[in-house]
Amino acid sequence: MIPDDEFIKNPSVPGPTAMEVRCLIMCLAEPGKNDVAVDVGCGTGGVTLELAGRVRRVYAIDRNPEAISTTEMNLQRHGLGDNVTLMEGDAPEALCKIPDIDIAVVGGSGGELQEILRIIKDKLKPGGRIIVTAILLETKFEAMECLRDLGFDVNITELNIARGRALDRGTMMVSRNPVALIYTGVSHENKD
Amino acid sequence: MIPDDEFIKNPSVPGPTAMEVRCLIMCLAEPGKNDVAVDVGCGTGGVTLELAGRVRRVYAIDRNPEAISTTEMNLQRHGLGDNVTLMEGDAPEALCKIPDIDIAVVGGSGGELQEILRIIKDKLKPGGRIIVTAILLETKFEAMECLRDLGFDVNITELNIARGRALDRGTMMVSRNPVALIYTGVSHENKD
Amino acid sequence: MIPDDEFIKNPSVPGPTAMEVRCLIMCLAEPGKNDVAVDVGCGTGGVTLELAGRVRRVYAIDRNPEAISTTEMNLQRHGLGDNVTLMEGDAPEALCKIPDIDIAVVGGSGGELQEILRIIKDKLKPGGRIIVTAILLETKFEAMECLRDLGFDVNITELNIARGRALDRGTMMVSRNPVALIYTGVSHENKD
Amino acid sequence: MIPDDEFIKNPSVPGPTAMEVRCLIMCLAEPGKNDVAVDVGCGTGGVTLELAGRVRRVYAIDRNPEAISTTEMNLQRHGLGDNVTLMEGDAPEALCKIPDIDIAVVGGSGGELQEILRIIKDKLKPGGRIIVTAILLETKFEAMECLRDLGFDVNITELNIARGRALDRGTMMVSRNPVALIYTGVSHENKD
Repeated sequence: MIPDDEFIKNPSVPGPTAMEVRCLIMCLAEPGKNDVAVDVGCGTGGVTLELAGRVRRVYAIDRNPEAISTTEMNLQRHGLGDNVTLMEGDAPEALCKIPDIDIAVVGGSGGELQEILRIIKDKLKPGGRIIVTAILLETKFEAMECLRDLGFDVNITELNIARGRALDRGTMMVSRNPVALIYTGVSHENKD
Repeated sequence: MIPDDEFIKNPSVPGPTAMEVRCLIMCLAEPGKNDVAVDVGCGTGGVTLELAGRVRRVYAIDRNPEAISTTEMNLQRHGLGDNVTLMEGDAPEALCKIPDIDIAVVGGSGGELQEILRIIKDKLKPGGRIIVTAILLETKFEAMECLRDLGFDVNITELNIARGRALDRGTMMVSRNPVALIYTGVSHENKD
Repeated sequence: MIPDDEFIKNPSVPGPTAMEVRCLIMCLAEPGKNDVAVDVGCGTGGVTLELAGRVRRVYAIDRNPEAISTTEMNLQRHGLGDNVTLMEGDAPEALCKIPDIDIAVVGGSGGELQEILRIIKDKLKPGGRIIVTAILLETKFEAMECLRDLGFDVNITELNIARGRALDRGTMMVSRNPVALIYTGVSHENKD
Repeated sequence: MIPDDEFIKNPSVPGPTAMEVRCLIMCLAEPGKNDVAVDVGCGTGGVTLELAGRVRRVYAIDRNPEAISTTEMNLQRHGLGDNVTLMEGDAPEALCKIPDIDIAVVGGSGGELQEILRIIKDKLKPGGRIIVTAILLETKFEAMECLRDLGFDVNITELNIARGRALDRGTMMVSRNPVALIYTGVSHENKD
């Protein structure tokens, strides 16, 4: 995984998604060499870069031109990008232009989550995986409801991560904001 | 990643390590096809199985015979094991018998953490990675101190994971106990 | 605060609410000697007992007769109850029978949260405080939406608590499930 | 409880302790009207102010003169202080000058935790309560070890708190850094 501080950052663009969260997204996405993936709301490019190194083709969508340029710079910085199509624009529109997909990561939806998930469902190949990352309480709820309504088995895992920061006096645990991953497919909730 | 509930469990053996934690361990371990790895305190075999699918050779050590037999059953269940050497016995002794390693995951140390880490350091190839998983407050502290004394740059990340469980009335978030990963190498602590 | 393990428990009744959560509820409720309080979904009686020791009158409502009997036994066990009215029945109905209140704690709503909060608003004296405790994702969302629609300033705080348990090998941190407190009145969210 | 943002802050002084943590400290301290309390490392004065409103006498100690002046301003701002003795200086020395105590809260120890706890033990009246708040991994460990060595039953509770912040797009959960409370006396760890 690319350490957080090896991304070029832009104050007007959220991200990068914390390494631990990108790591779990990749574990849930189970990217294969021939897979086609879409990253909706690519922001700084954290997820796009991880996908780019693992799948055949990535479509990275964001309506913020600064997100697209920041993602592009980060792709170049890490020698990636040949297999990435950057699409600036409204997600529902952009999604209609891409081929069928194996993996969809939705990190930002600009209030159009339902529409986005509906189109993704139509584009999802058999065995395809959808992962929504949410930091807003409302997105957690809406993603669960939407994916259920679309007929998926839906799981949610919430991550509270604290990293140790070395100070003179000792190791201070510094929290990241909680992130929820709402995902389709096999549940990892222990039924015991 | 192998879902938690696809492991054979044994009430007298801890584990399997939660999927999300195994996932982060793999991200930090960065296993390569030619790597040699050791899993100290393999328990149910969660980490051993993930390593087995990603590296050349895994040495799985545990002094509890039931852990060794449970790990063996899980390897068979998932069609893995050709590249795994199961070693029942005291970790320091077993470690002395194995070749140099690229990756060391220490999930259980039976009170011999310092000795274990000292031997691991001697066996670690250049660029090798050490990851200690800790659920005890004392292990978190001791692992940090030991690895620093052995000259490593040390990081600690603590994971609080809650998974949604579908009930009639709604989605109840069910917590796992906090797990800390103490690891050497590149820090993921954002210096911004 | 009454330690968790000093409550009589009943497997068919949820609770008691963890001490740390009851503690925060009391801090947010700011109970006064002349206050009238209602505990909707009193379960084992954790919140009812804390209120009983701090206010003039408590109305404890639950539609599960076992919750009412368990709360009664706990009140007796701790020498409390003179100022407590136990009401077995449907919350909206029971709420209509009680006088105006200063404090409302809603720990269980049986799917009638909107109706319950609507009636509570009508019964709430000026300066009154409402606290909803939620373990379900849907309740967190619904409580926020309802209270906002009813015109309140709404805050939400989520608590992840882990307590140390002394084992031979050391101190294992044991997690409680995350609990959210959705409350009206002064925000404690730092605006800095 | 006093909301966090009603404290005068000083960038060179830590604090105030988050409302939820001050709340739990008060619940564990069980302050009585005739109690004498000491707040070691008073910082911005969060704990001192809560104690001042609940006990007979508070000794607030800090070696940072800015902490003492900030605490003083906060006391004045909230109409408190008649029962508070502000002591600028080294904690072990200051502790030797105060009478026996019912409550000791240690929020900062400047590397002298063992000495501080040793003196506190000598000054602690029967039934007295000690609470150490820790954000450093090393302090959590050291406080547990020290208090055990001094013969106390020791408990540790770790709090991960996230507060909702209202944004246009929804409610973002914002984490506070994890805080551990290490305290003597009745365990709240559920033995079930």
